[in-house]
Formats: sequence, structure tokens, C-alpha cells
Amino acid sequence: MTYRVGIINVTGFAGMEAARLLWQHPEARITSITGRSLAGRRLGEAFPHLAVYGDTMITAEIEGSVDVVMSALPTAESASACVPYVRAGVKVIDIAADFRLKTAEAFETWMGKTHPAPELLAEATYGLPELNRAAIAASKLVANPGCYPAAAILALAPAVAAGVIGDQIVVDAKSGISGAGRGSGGSFGYSEVNEDVSAYKVGNHNHQPEIAQELGALREAPEPKVTFVPHLVPMTRGIHATCYAPLARDVSQAEVRELYREFYRDCPFTRVVDAPPHTKHTLGNNMCLVHPVVDARNGMLVAIGVLDNLVKGAAGQAIENMNLMLGIDQKAGLDLPAVYP
Amino acid sequence: MTYRVGIINVTGFAGMEAARLLWQHPEARITSITGRSLAGRRLGEAFPHLAVYGDTMITAEIEGSVDVVMSALPTAESASACVPYVRAGVKVIDIAADFRLKTAEAFETWMGKTHPAPELLAEATYGLPELNRAAIAASKLVANPGCYPAAAILALAPAVAAGVIGDQIVVDAKSGISGAGRGSGGSFGYSEVNEDVSAYKVGNHNHQPEIAQELGALREAPEPKVTFVPHLVPMTRGIHATCYAPLARDVSQAEVRELYREFYRDCPFTRVVDAPPHTKHTLGNNMCLVHPVVDARNGMLVAIGVLDNLVKGAAGQAIENMNLMLGIDQKAGLDLPAVYP
Amino acid sequence: MTYRVGIINVTGFAGMEAARLLWQHPEARITSITGRSLAGRRLGEAFPHLAVYGDTMITAEIEGSVDVVMSALPTAESASACVPYVRAGVKVIDIAADFRLKTAEAFETWMGKTHPAPELLAEATYGLPELNRAAIAASKLVANPGCYPAAAILALAPAVAAGVIGDQIVVDAKSGISGAGRGSGGSFGYSEVNEDVSAYKVGNHNHQPEIAQELGALREAPEPKVTFVPHLVPMTRGIHATCYAPLARDVSQAEVRELYREFYRDCPFTRVVDAPPHTKHTLGNNMCLVHPVVDARNGMLVAIGVLDNLVKGAAGQAIENMNLMLGIDQKAGLDLPAVYP
Amino acid sequence: MTYRVGIINVTGFAGMEAARLLWQHPEARITSITGRSLAGRRLGEAFPHLAVYGDTMITAEIEGSVDVVMSALPTAESASACVPYVRAGVKVIDIAADFRLKTAEAFETWMGKTHPAPELLAEATYGLPELNRAAIAASKLVANPGCYPAAAILALAPAVAAGVIGDQIVVDAKSGISGAGRGSGGSFGYSEVNEDVSAYKVGNHNHQPEIAQELGALREAPEPKVTFVPHLVPMTRGIHATCYAPLARDVSQAEVRELYREFYRDCPFTRVVDAPPHTKHTLGNNMCLVHPVVDARNGMLVAIGVLDNLVKGAAGQAIENMNLMLGIDQKAGLDLPAVYP
Repeated sequence: MTYRVGIINVTGFAGMEAARLLWQHPEARITSITGRSLAGRRLGEAFPHLAVYGDTMITAEIEGSVDVVMSALPTAESASACVPYVRAGVKVIDIAADFRLKTAEAFETWMGKTHPAPELLAEATYGLPELNRAAIAASKLVANPGCYPAAAILALAPAVAAGVIGDQIVVDAKSGISGAGRGSGGSFGYSEVNEDVSAYKVGNHNHQPEIAQELGALREAPEPKVTFVPHLVPMTRGIHATCYAPLARDVSQAEVRELYREFYRDCPFTRVVDAPPHTKHTLGNNMCLVHPVVDARNGMLVAIGVLDNLVKGAAGQAIENMNLMLGIDQKAGLDLPAVYP
Repeated sequence: MTYRVGIINVTGFAGMEAARLLWQHPEARITSITGRSLAGRRLGEAFPHLAVYGDTMITAEIEGSVDVVMSALPTAESASACVPYVRAGVKVIDIAADFRLKTAEAFETWMGKTHPAPELLAEATYGLPELNRAAIAASKLVANPGCYPAAAILALAPAVAAGVIGDQIVVDAKSGISGAGRGSGGSFGYSEVNEDVSAYKVGNHNHQPEIAQELGALREAPEPKVTFVPHLVPMTRGIHATCYAPLARDVSQAEVRELYREFYRDCPFTRVVDAPPHTKHTLGNNMCLVHPVVDARNGMLVAIGVLDNLVKGAAGQAIENMNLMLGIDQKAGLDLPAVYP
Repeated sequence: MTYRVGIINVTGFAGMEAARLLWQHPEARITSITGRSLAGRRLGEAFPHLAVYGDTMITAEIEGSVDVVMSALPTAESASACVPYVRAGVKVIDIAADFRLKTAEAFETWMGKTHPAPELLAEATYGLPELNRAAIAASKLVANPGCYPAAAILALAPAVAAGVIGDQIVVDAKSGISGAGRGSGGSFGYSEVNEDVSAYKVGNHNHQPEIAQELGALREAPEPKVTFVPHLVPMTRGIHATCYAPLARDVSQAEVRELYREFYRDCPFTRVVDAPPHTKHTLGNNMCLVHPVVDARNGMLVAIGVLDNLVKGAAGQAIENMNLMLGIDQKAGLDLPAVYP
Repeated sequence: MTYRVGIINVTGFAGMEAARLLWQHPEARITSITGRSLAGRRLGEAFPHLAVYGDTMITAEIEGSVDVVMSALPTAESASACVPYVRAGVKVIDIAADFRLKTAEAFETWMGKTHPAPELLAEATYGLPELNRAAIAASKLVANPGCYPAAAILALAPAVAAGVIGDQIVVDAKSGISGAGRGSGGSFGYSEVNEDVSAYKVGNHNHQPEIAQELGALREAPEPKVTFVPHLVPMTRGIHATCYAPLARDVSQAEVRELYREFYRDCPFTRVVDAPPHTKHTLGNNMCLVHPVVDARNGMLVAIGVLDNLVKGAAGQAIENMNLMLGIDQKAGLDLPAVYP
């Protein structure tokens, strides 16, 4: 059997990446795709890199029955689009930020908008399989993690869960420009972004509460303090999250390494590595590489997580969640090398 | 049945790209790989982007029986390595330049070295399926085209074959830096190459005779004159060949377009497009995009060909040739979207 | 004495580059700058790289008396802004394309707009000092060359003037993205442009007639045919023009080299070099590097010109023209190393 | 009077940048330059971007009398070369790391080599004018700061001096590739570095003790703990240091901002800015932009410093130190806009 997938808003970078990856999926295929500005056009004509899709049309609404819906609409627009599918019992994965925070209040505080479907928040599962595999498999509505949180949480989770680190966490993240989304060229023109590094939304980015919430769920104590500073670096894809936290107890490099390996033993897409990882080693695939280092001199844990923001940070993660929700192999369609160099 | 493939010298960019692409091949798999400096190491450890290969070891020599051998050794080293397999009846694809030129004399003139196996030259088939599909399918030894010639020949072949253009051809090619090969960092350091364009081997590059030879084979007249100037541009992958030739007769844009479409009607990996193509629309896949333009004002044909130098210009082309030699679907393992953005 | 310079529209890349370079000029200084959207703001606040300018304000109109006006307005808007200054006897340098073509008809054909001040065309001098030094020095209105034409004309002029090449010229140009102008991010977003090469306006760019006109002026025969294809490459600054033309007579590499050196003997900003030049060797300075190669095998001249599109291709050239018009040292303020790496 | 400057090892990136900047210096000029591998060649021929230097030759040893020597030799080679000049009373600026750490023991611990001239350590002044202007002016031997320390110390100094932050400091630095030096292409080839971010020497880089030492000198308490993690990002020039430290007392954003402005009031090359600064706004000039942010929610100070690693992080800083040592205007030759875009 081949599952039928609908993608709402295929025209953003996350949506088109889902289309790219689903092409190779052995048990699912796209049967309907929407995109407002490009409705009525052929997918492969609008986006020449997807020419393999031949006559597949972009429509205004999802057409025909589907088993799974992925929504790649902007945050605060996505929830409303998801509602009818959730109601109808279709499995829904929201790639936007609408169902990630647990409360409508938190959403309002950080997004500056009223939540469009607060009644569904209790049903939503945070879609990071390394933490929530069973819950995802049982869920009808999965909130796909943000790209920064995916990297930061995977870098820190084993240490938080084991109580190795204390409360004052720093997440310094470096992102490729595709994280800003398609059509963001007006603010991110090549001439301005090239040969430049800059921080933005210092201590104030809406991915911060998502990181704190999920790390907090790993332990008894209240949510840790997380200072989060995202940076843009001149590349297209990739996130490098460098996380820092004071050690809560004496721990050796070997112990931390073992603790991390144990934590991720059954996780096909998070690998603990012994040298500083390169974002480029995950370009185009669903891998997250994690590297913890004990800075014994200063009593600090440095934990690095790298991934492709459009794959493990968005569309690949959505497919991994879909696989779990459908009860098929978690790795289906995703067990791929990265593109290098 | 799954065909067994051996790769000689997996450690260069073309060799590792063959490994990346073969991972997804439905009917063939790598059973042995060699690499001199890295013999004894795990493939996925030496090259983290290939971690999916798990315990596959790099060895000094091909081990076990194989159905196909691909050699990615340097030019003038590759032929000798191929000889025993050709003799043993194994299908061989040489990704190096050893069997591309038809005579040992031409090889010596342009490569500055004695040909290591001139006795095999007559058996070799030039591996561009758009021109030689049947011959490739019947061949035991295929010479995989150079990256520049693949782009230039595909841009020009329909016009040459139809006698639309005259003799004085210009091929102005722009290449990403991966064309210089792995380990070329000494000459192509990031700080020097970034934010720079330059030409090299002006009118003197050894891909020039390959272009002239194959275009010459498409018509009765002698080989055309080809002025070939390669340039390096600051990107990793991609070739953009812009070709210019005086029109030999009056011809309209519509006529040329139709002539090109007809020529490539049954070619799954060369697509004629109606707007200037972007190299990035082929990143990571086996597509060549071709765009002919009649500059009526000046009596000139401008024909553009773009491709990924490591895929249609090297490893993907090798797999396409392998498919034909094995009598399986020409598209097997290669029918993929490009990676974008 | 210090000359007073006004810049109309300092807010584009060419205008702000003029401000950058004039800062170091020993005999001229900016006394007034305009910029529509940013009028009322401090220059160094709007553009932090120009913070050295301290309290200099951007105003809506040129304020106070000036000796020279440079206009960096868009084409077809610039001429009208120049008229009053020309009438008032102020020396004017138009960095836009309004006064480059000799006739209002040519302007209308190529720009698709009516010329705003056709009555001034006869007074305008084409501002390429390598060809027109004396005329520029005597002129009140100088049309600053386009960035592509500057590179192409300087690469080809000696050969055309000496009758070494024939009529069918190809100019294949590669440009950094800053050539598209500030605020062009909507079409040239980082994620789309990075790792990409593409051609545009194939055979149809409005710099083509400018190249043909100026090369035609160097000889008795009618204007040569010029096929011009511009390409965008992923870097910020730099133009690399690779020009091709059939040799009109037998000529050796040594002879061509000598002919080029002789032609540019007294030109401080065009240097004939013996190896393929790198755009990066001119980054930020006013140099044009020229490299002619005889491809004797094919009877073709390949002539390369490289420069920084914002300096010798725009603002630096404007200052060089200003120096000549003011009768001061042609090199004043421009005799600088390039920024490397 | 024009001071005579000798540069030892002009052939590295820092040395050639010193040559680039000194070209424009109003009161000093290069009279002798050395470079081992290129001795006997013209400077402008070896490095085409320095062609303005005409016939200046690279020699094996400094020739003639000089007033100032800058050494850009590798660390642990530089000190020995400096000794004779210091002895002879020539003013010496060491751009290498030989005289930065105060003790031979620290040098040995972090560099893994015996100090070549420990007897001079007591005479050396740490050359960061924002902290040590008077001492530099009085010194005969100045240790030019490392590129990372320059950015980190300038970001943190006002907060440390005012006792606003506590002891556990994190410095997360992002550097362009030129920091790795010329001839580093073997490890930093374009194809590998492009589209990649990675950390290196996590918690173990030899710039860490330099940061801790200089921050420690600003207060009574012992040296703070500094966790330093450098990262390479795909650009040529620029350092972005993002520094984090727990607040030691309640402090408002306005108070911190004022405290920073006050600290740098008389410093011509460090500017406190109100928005996250861009490395590109300092490209090619001697500016450091500093931006402190109070993350009140988490009780953390985030302090950002950006600069051009080859200018304020190396050669420009050396010239600024030279100016102070010579008693001339601190800004001489350095009061320049940045190159943008």
C-alpha cells in the first residue's frame, strides 16, 4: 500500500523540500499539493529542480482523499488550515510553530498573535522522535520542531536528563540563510549577506521558549534558563548550535560521551561523534550530529548539534514523524547519504 | 538480482559521489571499494556524509567478484587498473580521461604522457548516452565523458548534427571548484578562491580535443574548430557552458528549439528549457539543462548547457552508462530531484 | 583648494562607493549628498561602513554650491536631474546610462523609454579615459561607462584599433551580484543566488550597443557585430569579461602582447598582464587587468578584462573622469592597492 | 618626516595586509620587506593586488635602517627575529603570539614550545590601545593582540572593569577563513569549507589564556574563567565574537549601554552600536563594533564584538600601535570607510 500525502503550501522552502524527499519514499507519495500564489501551475515548472514530478499540479486546496497532511504555512496561519483534517481523522504534521508551545498564553506572548486553534493544543505532540517516539506514533497531530530547537535540544537533552548540567544554559546558533524562508530576498539580498556574520533577535527569538519547554520536560526541576542567540552565516543550508552549560557535578569526557551514546542508542538519525562535526556532513539528509565536550578547566559542558535546517530541522523531520504515525519503518525514505562536497 | 559494483579510488570527489548515488540504486550495490591512502578504514568514518555505509571497508584492491568496475583514478593511472577487468570480461567504466580520445597520439599530445593501454582504445565507447546509447549498451569498456565536454557537447550536438552552425565554435565554461578534485586545496584555498573569477589554460585545456572529436563525429565534415576557455567561479558544484557558433544558415528561434527538442526526445537526462537555466537546478542530480538562443542580429547561435559536474559530469553519468551496459532501466537510481535551494 | 562634490542618490551601490572612495581624495570632498528614501538621516548611520562621515546628512536635494555633480540615479531618471547642473556650468558625471549612446533613437530602442534630455547628447563625452582622455578633460558632461562595457572595451580596444580582429565578436561576461544594485534582494536572494551560475538577457542586454558603438569608433569600418551574454556568479563584486574574435590576420602572441602594452602605455589604471587575471586582484580599487591570448590553432583572439564593477566599472571611473575634468592628477584618490584576500 | 617601516614576512596574510594599509599612511612608508620563499621577487608581481608598489623588492633580510619593525612571522619564530631590533632600539611590533602571554610558562603550556626570548617578556606591552594606550606609547616592544582576543576583550572589557558580570564567561567566536593564514589551503580547500560551519579546538585554543589574562588585568579579582570556542564560517574576512556572562548585579540595558559608551569615549576605533553589528561593516577597515545586550529574563549579559581579523585583528592594529609608539596621530592612515557591499 502507498500512503497518500497532501502538502499545504509547497511553495516555501520547507514545503518544496518535503516534495523533494517524498519523491524517494517507498511507501508514500504526494497526491495533492497547494500553494496560493502558484495555484494552477505545474510543480516541476514552477520549481525546475522538481521537474521529475511531471504533470503534478499545484492547486488552491487539497484535492481528493489523503492519509497524511503536512502544513508548511506560515506560523499563525497554519493551525486553522490543520483543523479540518484533524477533525476528519487525517494524520496531520504541522511544520509551522502553531502547536509547539503547550499553552495559548505562551504562543501569544512569543508570537504576538492570538492562537488560531487553542482547543487542539492538548492533542498535539511535540515531534522530536528522539524524545517522544511512542507519543508521536500514537498521535493524530504532531508539532514539528523548529530548526534551531531541533539542533539545540538534541545537543543538550542527554545532559539535562542525566542532571549533569545546571540551569544557566547558553545556545549560540549559526544558521544558513534558507532558514529565513523563500521570498526573504528583500531582506537577505546576496550582496548584503555574503561575507557577513550577524546576530539577530538577541535573547528574544521565539524559538527560545520551545527549547526551554522541551528541556524542562526532561527533568523534575523547573524549566532551565536558556539564553538563545541566533546568527546568520553566509551559506544556504545548515545549523550549528553550540550550547554551553555549567556542569552540575564532576563528570569526565568519557562518562559524558557514554551517556550521550546510550541516550541515542536506538535513534537512527542522531549520531554522537568524536570530533567537532561539520554542518556540511548533513547537507540534504536527515542526520543530526552531536558532539559533547567537557571543558574541565572551566567546569563547563560544551555540546554541539548540527543538522540541515530544511531536513532534520523541517521536512525530513516531518517525514520521520509521518513514518512513526503510519507505523512504518522510521527510516523509510530518509536513510540517505549527505551531499558532499 | 542485485549487481555487484566495485569502485577503484573511492576517495576522490567522483568516486565518493558514485558511492553516494549507488546507495539509492535499486538493482546494484557496492561490494568493494578501494582507496590507496585510506585503505583499512571504514568508508563512513573516512567520509562522514557516507555514514549510512556502516561497516563497509576501504581496501587496497577490489575484493571478491564484481559485475561492474568504475575507476576514478587519475588520468594515465586509470587505464592500467582497468586492463585486467576488461580482459576478465567485467564491465568497466573509466571515469578518468584515459579512453576518451580515439588515438594514443592524441592522448600523448594533450596529456603529455604515453598511453598506458593503447591496445584497448579501439574497444572503448564514448559514454554519452544522448549520442551513443546503443554502442554503450553493447560495450565492455566505456569512457565516461569529461565534465566540461558533457555540458558543451550536449549544448551543441543538435545544432552540429543539423548543420545549423558553422565551424568556428567558442565554448566558454564556468565551473565550480570541486572540478579541481579533492586534495586540491593547496592551490584552491578558500580565501583565495572565494569572491574571485578567473580563467585558466586559455585555449589549451585537454578537454578541448574531446569536445571537437565528439562534435566532429556528428557530421560528415572534418572536426570543427573549438576555442575552449574554462573559468573557475566561487561555488562548489556546477558547470555552465555557454557556447557560441556562427549560424550556417537562416534559422528561427522556433526552428532551433524544435530541432533541439526532437534531438533529445528520448533522452531522460537532457531537457531543453525555454529560459536561461541555473546550475543550481541540477545540484546533486543527473540532469543536463540545455537552452539554445538564436542571436539573429549577429547571425550567432548561443547554446547553453548546465549540469552538476560530479553527477551528469562524472559519477551519475557513470551509473547511467552502467545501467545501459547491464540492460536495466537507464534511469535506475538516477531519477531524482535536485537539491534546492 | 579642495573641490566640492555633490552626489545625487548616494543610496545605491554606485553612489555609496563614490562616497567611500572620495573620503580618501586629497583634493576633493563631498559637500552634499542626496537620497530620496533616506533624506534626513546621517550618512554614517544609514550605512555603517561610512561612519567616518560623522554628521554628514543625506538631503532631498543638492545643497550649497558644488564644483562637480555625480549622478547615480537609475537610468532614464538621471538625465533630467543632470540638466540644471549642466546648464549652470557645473561639471557633471552621469553614472547612469542616459548619455552613453550617441542618439536618442538608440536609447529608446534599447532602454524602452524616451530620452529625457536628447538636446544634451551632443555635448556628452563617453568617459573611458583610455580612449578619450583629452575629450573628457575638455567636457562638461561625461557619460560614465557601464560596468560590462568598461571591461569588454578595455579587453578589445587595442585589437580593434590595430585591425587585428574581424567583425564577429563574442563577449561572455561574468558579474558579481552587486551589479544588480542595492535593493535587488527580492530577485537576488542569497539562498537562490548562492552556489549558482546563470545567464540572463542572452544577446539582448542594453550594454551590447554601448560596446559595439565604442569599438566601432576605433576604426574606419562600420560597427562590429557583438554577441554579448552576461552571467551572474555567486560573488559580490567583480566582472570578468572573456572576449573572443576571429583573427583578421596572422599575428603572434608576442606581437599582440606588445600591441596591447603600447596601447595602454600611459594609462595608469589598465595593466596588461601575462597570466589569466583574477577579479579579486582588483577588489576595491580602480584597476582593470587585461590579458590577450592568441589561440593560433583556431585563428581566434581571446581577450580578457577584469575589474571591480563598483570601482573601475562605476564610482572609481567617475572619480577618474572628475580628476581629468578638474585638470588635477588623473590618479588622485585612486592610486590604491586592492583588498586581498 | 616620513618614518621608515620594515616588515618581516610580508608574504602571509597579516604581512601583506600591513603593506596594503601602509601604502596610504601619510607619515610612514615601507622601506624594506622580507619573505623567505619569495625573496628576490617584486612585491607587486608576487601579489598583484599590491602592484602599486612597483619595483619594491622582497628581500631575505631587512635592508637599511628602519624606525619600526613589524614581524608577521609564525608564532615561536617571531621572537628571535625581533630580538636584534629591540636591542638596537628600533620600535618593534610583533604580530605573532610570542609576547602576548606574560610568562614563559604560559607560553610553553599553550603553544607547546619553549619561548625563544623569555628575557624580553617583561619589556613587552600588550598592544590593545583601548586598554593600554599610554603604556603602548612608552613601549619599545608591543605584542599585537590575537584576532579573537581583540574582538572578545573589546566586547567584554567595560563590563568586566565595572564589575557588572561574574566569572563564568563564554566566548563563542565565528571567524572567516583568512584567519587560518595563507597557504592553509591544504586544510581549508574551497570545496570543503564552502557551505560549512564547524567548531575547532573546543575549549582548547591558545587564544583562551590571552583573553583571560587581559580581562583579569581589568579587575582586582583573579582571572575569570573563559570557555572559548572558535568556529570557521564560509567567508574570507571577519570575526564575530558573541560573549556571554552571568550578570553580577542588577543592571539595565540603558546603564550598560552608557557604561560601554563611557569606556570607549576616546577610542577612535571602537564604536558602541545599538543594533547587532555586521562583520561586513568593518571589512577592510580598523573598526571594532561593540554591542552589549542585557538578557534580563535570564540574568545574562550578551556582548558582541565584530572586526576584520586582518585589520583591527592584525595589521591595522599593528599600525595603530605604531602610531602611538611614534607619537603621531593614532588614526593616521587608518581613518577609512569599510568596503561595502
